[in-house]
Amino acid sequence: MKILVTGFDPFGGEKVNPAFEVLKKLKRNIAGAKISLLEVPTVFGESVAKVISAIEKQKPDVVLMIGQAGGRYEVTVERIGINIDDARIPDNKNNQPIDKPIDPEGPAAYFATVPVKAMVQAIRKSGVPASVSNTAGTFVCNHLLYGVLHYLAKNAPQVKAGFIHIPLLIEQAIGKTNMPSMGLKTMVTAIEAAITAVVSSSSKKASTKKPKSPQKVSS
Amino acid sequence: MKILVTGFDPFGGEKVNPAFEVLKKLKRNIAGAKISLLEVPTVFGESVAKVISAIEKQKPDVVLMIGQAGGRYEVTVERIGINIDDARIPDNKNNQPIDKPIDPEGPAAYFATVPVKAMVQAIRKSGVPASVSNTAGTFVCNHLLYGVLHYLAKNAPQVKAGFIHIPLLIEQAIGKTNMPSMGLKTMVTAIEAAITAVVSSSSKKASTKKPKSPQKVSS
Amino acid sequence: MKILVTGFDPFGGEKVNPAFEVLKKLKRNIAGAKISLLEVPTVFGESVAKVISAIEKQKPDVVLMIGQAGGRYEVTVERIGINIDDARIPDNKNNQPIDKPIDPEGPAAYFATVPVKAMVQAIRKSGVPASVSNTAGTFVCNHLLYGVLHYLAKNAPQVKAGFIHIPLLIEQAIGKTNMPSMGLKTMVTAIEAAITAVVSSSSKKASTKKPKSPQKVSS
Amino acid sequence: MKILVTGFDPFGGEKVNPAFEVLKKLKRNIAGAKISLLEVPTVFGESVAKVISAIEKQKPDVVLMIGQAGGRYEVTVERIGINIDDARIPDNKNNQPIDKPIDPEGPAAYFATVPVKAMVQAIRKSGVPASVSNTAGTFVCNHLLYGVLHYLAKNAPQVKAGFIHIPLLIEQAIGKTNMPSMGLKTMVTAIEAAITAVVSSSSKKASTKKPKSPQKVSS
Repeated sequence: MKILVTGFDPFGGEKVNPAFEVLKKLKRNIAGAKISLLEVPTVFGESVAKVISAIEKQKPDVVLMIGQAGGRYEVTVERIGINIDDARIPDNKNNQPIDKPIDPEGPAAYFATVPVKAMVQAIRKSGVPASVSNTAGTFVCNHLLYGVLHYLAKNAPQVKAGFIHIPLLIEQAIGKTNMPSMGLKTMVTAIEAAITAVVSSSSKKASTKKPKSPQKVSS
Repeated sequence: MKILVTGFDPFGGEKVNPAFEVLKKLKRNIAGAKISLLEVPTVFGESVAKVISAIEKQKPDVVLMIGQAGGRYEVTVERIGINIDDARIPDNKNNQPIDKPIDPEGPAAYFATVPVKAMVQAIRKSGVPASVSNTAGTFVCNHLLYGVLHYLAKNAPQVKAGFIHIPLLIEQAIGKTNMPSMGLKTMVTAIEAAITAVVSSSSKKASTKKPKSPQKVSS
Repeated sequence: MKILVTGFDPFGGEKVNPAFEVLKKLKRNIAGAKISLLEVPTVFGESVAKVISAIEKQKPDVVLMIGQAGGRYEVTVERIGINIDDARIPDNKNNQPIDKPIDPEGPAAYFATVPVKAMVQAIRKSGVPASVSNTAGTFVCNHLLYGVLHYLAKNAPQVKAGFIHIPLLIEQAIGKTNMPSMGLKTMVTAIEAAITAVVSSSSKKASTKKPKSPQKVSS
Repeated sequence: MKILVTGFDPFGGEKVNPAFEVLKKLKRNIAGAKISLLEVPTVFGESVAKVISAIEKQKPDVVLMIGQAGGRYEVTVERIGINIDDARIPDNKNNQPIDKPIDPEGPAAYFATVPVKAMVQAIRKSGVPASVSNTAGTFVCNHLLYGVLHYLAKNAPQVKAGFIHIPLLIEQAIGKTNMPSMGLKTMVTAIEAAITAVVSSSSKKASTKKPKSPQKVSS
């Protein structure tokens, strides 16, 4: 089993992005799955293109995208990506789309195809607060989630994809008022637990599910 | 122009629902539009059935649903309804669906078809804090929003529909810790401003838009 | 019975101060007490001087100071004023004392001498969320509370004094993220309820208390 | 130099108290100072008695008390302890004093005598969010801070004392909604940085200060 894990580069004036910091610390083999890593630019359009290109080369079984969610207290596993770009700040190439569909021909949304609830449970069991999120926002994080799910739905529906938002790193919260944050090691623990849940869910399905059963809503 | 405005009954141990309290205070004619009111039970399934039945009888041009969002600071206009019921507490008939699609055959989501951003601007201009929300949750509020948009998409696509969440009433916040709240009169001002924006947007479209132009993503 | 009610002028970039807006709407006779009003500059030193000067001229029985507390959800009645100025922003005359005692010879703190808990109960009964606060901060609000209590302790110990913080007005919260706010009318209701509690507590004490009983800690 | 560091036992339904967990991980020698540790019961009265008894036996130069502050985002160094017990929940021996002075003969408050601002700066430099707090609440934490400062003021004014509040541990936040938390290792880093600042401030004063200079307000 091959899992492609992506993390954004820093944006919005931050010097680091916890998502990419987590990537650098991840084990390359988790629960028997081979992990490959990809840094993604915080840029509308380019982010999706870079991940699709990696999917086409590496042919992973699962794509797990990670992003920073300033202001969140917990690790949150996203339930859905929606067909809209609506940016309050410019991305790293100064694009700031307002109320623009990601694909005017695409459906309004896609549910993540990873086991969202099982991932949340696994993260909590590993000792880290986690919950399901029903919105990935309308900035580049949601853009990438929708873009990848849209691509996979058309081109490789057997590949699962999902998105995990993580809080700011502890050092990013210094000097910000009432800003929740989390240590890097804790985040790495959480992401590895989530990946283990993905692997475990896939192997269960592989052994117990009848072939060609219709795809269910994910979570 | 006819606008059907709906509000839920109390749930989750509250004695009032600000949505229904607002309804009782609304003017019956706003910016030339005729307002009709409907109390809706906080019950999965029944809520949608009751609103659809009213739509079929009254044939409104717009359906504006209002609900309580404990913990929110502002009046929020919802951008999207998603195809999932996932209830942390039971509804008023003790249903508590977990991760259940609202319609297993339905699309993942519908965007609201009212002018979300214009409504937010109008509410702010009326002196009340407001913002766009990207999630109506996964309880009865989202259920009703999705259910009505789903029905209208199939049966009456010319009818617009949207959902506004309002904070707790001031008196509901007494004894709760750090719970944002808002006065009833302020909420009524906000909803009337939002309705005025809906009316104004419809008349602009009616006079300037070419017929049969394709429906755009809402907001 | 005469009550002097004070409210600050706007500071920190705001165009209004809810405290002064409340003053303008207050009844001039509340529960039989005569209310006089005083606008106070948001300036270290001058604020205390202006209130002391009014006390000396008007000889009130109670001084009730009102100030704005951005970020608070409720009306809060302050329990204590402390002997320190420590300003994160400059006052309205560009003073920004850091860690400076208000009076190097003064005690570390004074408890408010109004009935804090009874005022909180009365505000809640009037339908408005309220709680006791254990810190008035270290800006001009605390400075005034400490300064007035310090003056009264030495010069007129029979005069009661207290401080009430109120949230931002609804219109001040527009465009701020997750900022609690409250309507003006609600705040006026709360302050009048608090004043009624002060009056009622004074008359009870006047009729039931033995003379020369030692002063108790206030709240 | 000898520093007595105290931490409370668990209370309020929690299974651990981060304060005591931090104690167990602290180095016993920090910046040349000898650290001794003391677990303190979360009980009005007994907590103060136990710390005073340790002070009398060990004769430390500094007493640094540590407590849990659920809901805080940062490590906070307390500026002041106030002369009031006002408990929203019972302590571990079921005492729940309401609006009771700690010592009816004592002053309204004492400022901490450790270098509060220098400690905050040192904690931030160590990579951990920190700020000054102007209230230690009115439960056992404030009770202990006031009680120890009161004892030292009368009996050993050369001994410095202060209080640091720490957030919940990460594992305590699981299942709580929007609850900030922090990793144990991060907290240990913060407390060791704060102690280093205390030691460094004492040695600077020892070498540069004229003898018998009057005690200044602490922070």
